[in-house]
Amino acid sequence: MPEFRPVVFIGGILVLVLSATMAIPALVELWLEADHASEYLPCVAVPAFLGSAAMLAARGGPKKLGVREAYLLTAGVWLILPLVAALPFMWTVPNLSLADAYFESVSGLTTTGSTVITGLDKLPPGVLLWRSLLQWVGGIGIVAMAVAVLPLLKVGGMQLMKRESSDTSDKILARPRELATWLLAVYLGLTVASAIGYRLTGMSQFEALNHAMTTVSTGGYSTHDASFGGFSPAAQWASVVFMLAGAVPFLWYVQLVRGTSGFVPWSQIPPMLGVVLVGGLILAGTAVGSGHDPLEALRHGVFTVASVITTTGYASHDWQNWGPLAASTVLMLTFCGGCTGSTAGGVKIFRWQLLFSRFRIIVQEMIRPHRVVAQVYQGRPVSPEVVQGVTAFILLLGGVTSLTTVALTATGVDLVTAFSSAATAITNVGPALGDIAGPAGTFAPLPDAAKWILSFAMLLGRLELLTVLVMLDPGFWRR
Amino acid sequence: MPEFRPVVFIGGILVLVLSATMAIPALVELWLEADHASEYLPCVAVPAFLGSAAMLAARGGPKKLGVREAYLLTAGVWLILPLVAALPFMWTVPNLSLADAYFESVSGLTTTGSTVITGLDKLPPGVLLWRSLLQWVGGIGIVAMAVAVLPLLKVGGMQLMKRESSDTSDKILARPRELATWLLAVYLGLTVASAIGYRLTGMSQFEALNHAMTTVSTGGYSTHDASFGGFSPAAQWASVVFMLAGAVPFLWYVQLVRGTSGFVPWSQIPPMLGVVLVGGLILAGTAVGSGHDPLEALRHGVFTVASVITTTGYASHDWQNWGPLAASTVLMLTFCGGCTGSTAGGVKIFRWQLLFSRFRIIVQEMIRPHRVVAQVYQGRPVSPEVVQGVTAFILLLGGVTSLTTVALTATGVDLVTAFSSAATAITNVGPALGDIAGPAGTFAPLPDAAKWILSFAMLLGRLELLTVLVMLDPGFWRR
Repeated sequence: MPEFRPVVFIGGILVLVLSATMAIPALVELWLEADHASEYLPCVAVPAFLGSAAMLAARGGPKKLGVREAYLLTAGVWLILPLVAALPFMWTVPNLSLADAYFESVSGLTTTGSTVITGLDKLPPGVLLWRSLLQWVGGIGIVAMAVAVLPLLKVGGMQLMKRESSDTSDKILARPRELATWLLAVYLGLTVASAIGYRLTGMSQFEALNHAMTTVSTGGYSTHDASFGGFSPAAQWASVVFMLAGAVPFLWYVQLVRGTSGFVPWSQIPPMLGVVLVGGLILAGTAVGSGHDPLEALRHGVFTVASVITTTGYASHDWQNWGPLAASTVLMLTFCGGCTGSTAGGVKIFRWQLLFSRFRIIVQEMIRPHRVVAQVYQGRPVSPEVVQGVTAFILLLGGVTSLTTVALTATGVDLVTAFSSAATAITNVGPALGDIAGPAGTFAPLPDAAKWILSFAMLLGRLELLTVLVMLDPGFWRR
Repeated sequence: MPEFRPVVFIGGILVLVLSATMAIPALVELWLEADHASEYLPCVAVPAFLGSAAMLAARGGPKKLGVREAYLLTAGVWLILPLVAALPFMWTVPNLSLADAYFESVSGLTTTGSTVITGLDKLPPGVLLWRSLLQWVGGIGIVAMAVAVLPLLKVGGMQLMKRESSDTSDKILARPRELATWLLAVYLGLTVASAIGYRLTGMSQFEALNHAMTTVSTGGYSTHDASFGGFSPAAQWASVVFMLAGAVPFLWYVQLVRGTSGFVPWSQIPPMLGVVLVGGLILAGTAVGSGHDPLEALRHGVFTVASVITTTGYASHDWQNWGPLAASTVLMLTFCGGCTGSTAGGVKIFRWQLLFSRFRIIVQEMIRPHRVVAQVYQGRPVSPEVVQGVTAFILLLGGVTSLTTVALTATGVDLVTAFSSAATAITNVGPALGDIAGPAGTFAPLPDAAKWILSFAMLLGRLELLTVLVMLDPGFWRR
């Protein structure tokens, strides 16, 4: 049996932090119009009480977390926090079921960006800001998890990095507090830059702030039902830049600014840009085939690809009108992902790179038996365990996507919506295919059962699958 | 550079064999009605000439095949033979393009069973018999390849078996000629038993013979557009038995009859039957939900699952009318496959077993680091290379299916047809989803480009992917 007390204690702290965050939309409501501010009182108070109670109940436990406690904490926090974060949705948005509110909240914190709320343009600013804040908080939480927690659990392929953290040359990774400060500074800096970029390209202050938060976190929530469809071409190009900026390993920025020498998997960046270019051209071709002007087609093509592979999920146009090749390309790119160590979800370029280089080695060994080729990444040897973790992740992704698809069809959802929704949830991208789940729809018409399934799929994907699946083994709970 | 002469020489022999086989439908035509017999004259003569020419041109080369020559021969033979086998389709069936004829022929030899011919019921018996014969010859070729060729190439996961072939206890595998005789005897025996079973359950002699050949080879060609829809329930149950019999490791039969003690991966059989039962019940549930009588629903459910996982591809009913859960279940089962060492295609139970047991070990090692668990199969240790081959195969299958889907949509095919056709081609199952590719349709309406793509996908799948992909590496052709 894992030890529950430290898990509950730390969980309590995080619930308190989230409760405090809910004061922000309340203050904004007060400042802007004072209409809905009072509705946030219970949103702040209830979790404040619950978080304190949890901390009190669990105090005095061991201070150090074992491996199993670390799994439990990571998964438990991601399961419970969205429940707390769902309170403003339940209490300020009319006609949302519990399944709706939890879905919206999970989609926010995991920076997926799928929504069940229609009529965003008419919502009070507090809720819109809360959605953006959720993604912003979720985004930095994901970077922290990718850099600090998952390598310890040997999940996510960043063990490569962890091993290097013992390098004497690698000063910043050896000091967690300094590292956290630097990551937060980078995140804040990108957000401010993005907000300025959006303001200069025509957004209002409120729009620019909200979209900056959901861009840098590669979240994808918008303040408009039309997403980026209503903004200027310049704002769309700015968004491409900042979505990609949010999908780059954050330590790379720290390294650029500080000049530290630790291992950062920066060589994911050129292939990511290559995918944007090639994918963008393919989509642009299909858009031209559907009667778009070439330059406009290129903009929508590049925007869509950047939005999908960074797992942001904004839409500038419904590419479903561009024929089957556009649909299959977007669906395939859903499984691409951004770079590890960023806010992006999905498989991520790093894993694909390790996988492709593994395949080359397998083929070489098939052609010339008895020859053993060592696998390297950025000149560093890659251990068989890392390769095993990468292949296991991608295989699990396929398995979980298939099972989620079957579960969704069992609730009556059609096959295309089911498969594409499962894929977009697990990879934390956002929009899927079809009238309901596509870029021009919302997930609102799905049955509640499907929303619960998709909520858990988003969490599973965000936790890089293995972190959760390890708990399905009876051995996890034994001792 | 690999040495081409022995490859061309052996290829020539196989072309001659295939040319001789084409005399069989000619003789049957003569015997039954003498209408189309003369059309087979060029079908026999042209490849006889070409095969002899190839043998003459390539004689005098080295007798022994290197590893690369073995790859080249395996892939080359599977690429060329369907071209020869397509001649009767081109010269006796009206309105078939070259793409149609090659597709039909590939679908036959790879025992996929997808068809581009509509109006089977009105075709002359010679062509119907030729379709069945192609699958029957393909089936035994596949067993021979799985047992004798692929283990040498370290493809297919049967290296486990190969290593054991040096056991002194394992007499039959040490004598290739005796092994071949036994496998052929088993194959003939199953075919005769199946024909008798079909005859007793109401089929005509001609129907029973044809379906026996396409059942035991898990091929799926029928002499009727309605496939098994028009046959008696008893014939459908008989088909379930013989499809499963064709998807069992053939060496297991040899072992049962002879009592030899070599390694046979028989423990695939119980899970295969489990999948038929569970999948059959799920499908039966959806059929009952669509208004079927429970016993009838069970029959159609079990028949469909047996047909899909053995990669036969017969249809007793269009399960697409049973709602989205039926569609997603069948699509997922398309990737299941039968047992290795049989005529079945797809991933196959053996690989799934190795993969699942690997996952259990990964999870156990995550929970308790520093603990190393050895992987075994039927009590024998499984080497890391075999596990790597299995994971590489499944990952490649996903990759090739995705790329084939994108290529098909580029020819204008809709996404559901494209994805399900790609899957059914690569796994050699037969029917897919949608009006065109579904169990009630034919692939005839697809554009020629799509038919070429699907033909190569069927070959790729039949050759277990790696056998072909190894040739994409420039290193294969060097030196």
